[in-house]
Amino acid sequence: MKIILIGAGNVGWHLGCRLRDCGEKVVQVFSRNLLKAKELGAEIQAASTHRLDDISPDGDLYILAVQDDAIREVAEKLASKGLNKKLIVHTSGATPMTVFADVLERYGVFYPLQTFSKKRQPDFSGIPICLDARLEQDREDLAVLAKKISREVYQVSDEQRAVLHVAAVFVNNFTNHLFNIGHEILEKEGLPFDLLLPLIRETVGKLEDGTPAEMQTGPAVRADGSTIQRHLHFLEQYPDYQEIYRLLTESIGQGRSK
Amino acid sequence: MKIILIGAGNVGWHLGCRLRDCGEKVVQVFSRNLLKAKELGAEIQAASTHRLDDISPDGDLYILAVQDDAIREVAEKLASKGLNKKLIVHTSGATPMTVFADVLERYGVFYPLQTFSKKRQPDFSGIPICLDARLEQDREDLAVLAKKISREVYQVSDEQRAVLHVAAVFVNNFTNHLFNIGHEILEKEGLPFDLLLPLIRETVGKLEDGTPAEMQTGPAVRADGSTIQRHLHFLEQYPDYQEIYRLLTESIGQGRSK
Repeated sequence: MKIILIGAGNVGWHLGCRLRDCGEKVVQVFSRNLLKAKELGAEIQAASTHRLDDISPDGDLYILAVQDDAIREVAEKLASKGLNKKLIVHTSGATPMTVFADVLERYGVFYPLQTFSKKRQPDFSGIPICLDARLEQDREDLAVLAKKISREVYQVSDEQRAVLHVAAVFVNNFTNHLFNIGHEILEKEGLPFDLLLPLIRETVGKLEDGTPAEMQTGPAVRADGSTIQRHLHFLEQYPDYQEIYRLLTESIGQGRSK
Repeated sequence: MKIILIGAGNVGWHLGCRLRDCGEKVVQVFSRNLLKAKELGAEIQAASTHRLDDISPDGDLYILAVQDDAIREVAEKLASKGLNKKLIVHTSGATPMTVFADVLERYGVFYPLQTFSKKRQPDFSGIPICLDARLEQDREDLAVLAKKISREVYQVSDEQRAVLHVAAVFVNNFTNHLFNIGHEILEKEGLPFDLLLPLIRETVGKLEDGTPAEMQTGPAVRADGSTIQRHLHFLEQYPDYQEIYRLLTESIGQGRSK
């Protein structure tokens, strides 16, 4: 299967490297940024281009690892080059597969459920690949490819993927923001954030032993009003964080009463 | 140093085991619950009692690993037994050292900054021990003891510990609640929570590479209004979680504009 990789950002970079490591043939890399295209092309021994017009028509699979709002535009461009009968997928958690519906015939999704950053090497073998395709044969082909790069392969509908994406925002983006609040509060008192790292690691480690609801601890679930009041009083200097504290404490309390 | 351990809950249990593992002498364990006292006593080869009156007057250090609202009561009881010149500490992040001020002469805090659960074996060597004492000599003695059980020993004032405790609620209790929200949303769609575990682990793993602010990703920090609107629309069936989504998204957005 000759793969054309469109996009050389964090997802494109790590997916390209993983495909190469697993013996798959990425024949060409596209990025609007010429340097990025060349860099990834060199890394995975693929041709590179920064012009959509120069994208090869000889691919079997086109993977669009581009920003959500560029998916439609790239698909239209590929269609206008007569590639509308090729299998074209995007890698987005947030965009329905139907973004391709009226311009392509064979299309799908190949969504690795992970947060990627350039500097960090992900352990791809455990990353869930959530895939889908309009045609059954394409779904099967994508599953074969996905199983080469990961142990965790799921067929996931647009509706399910949308839910996964909302949940991912809670457990990743919002969790990171809570870490940021902890960081900011400690920094102001001259305390190192590292003090919290063992606690943070254990918060995640405990998920091995039960559901998050079973693992809930702290003043909110104990209905420890005097501690909550003391915390709210301290947070008066951070009105945004006070509001977040209040709302999350209430929400945990509602779980308690269920 | 002969140690009397008062409380056999999660903190008392793991602290007792760690002290034993490091060659320290816990001579007696107290718990209101006779079975718990006996169980921990047997585990760490210490005497046990469930009567406050039977607490030994021969200890050098009394560690109160009891609930916050019991600390004062136990201290008064020990004082009434003539132990007010003994070194007595509590293990709470939420309670100021001054809880002891008018009943004891030598008192302090010995706070392991971690979340403990009975079933999980903590790696105690990396747990920050935040300590303090009224008298300098007691502070030094507590530091010697703390360094035997952990690499991470800090002298932390009441004010700093109060801030640490607020931050711990954000990064531990509230983070766990976000995991719970992810769990609930996925469960309703028949999707396994395990799909999110690699993402959750990586959210924490990325803290090795930079501050949480530098690591922030997602629709809120990108100001991706159409994704945010789609998520809010989905969350209409979960009004509490919709409100949490809105507030955290706003808060992340304010960080963006800093």
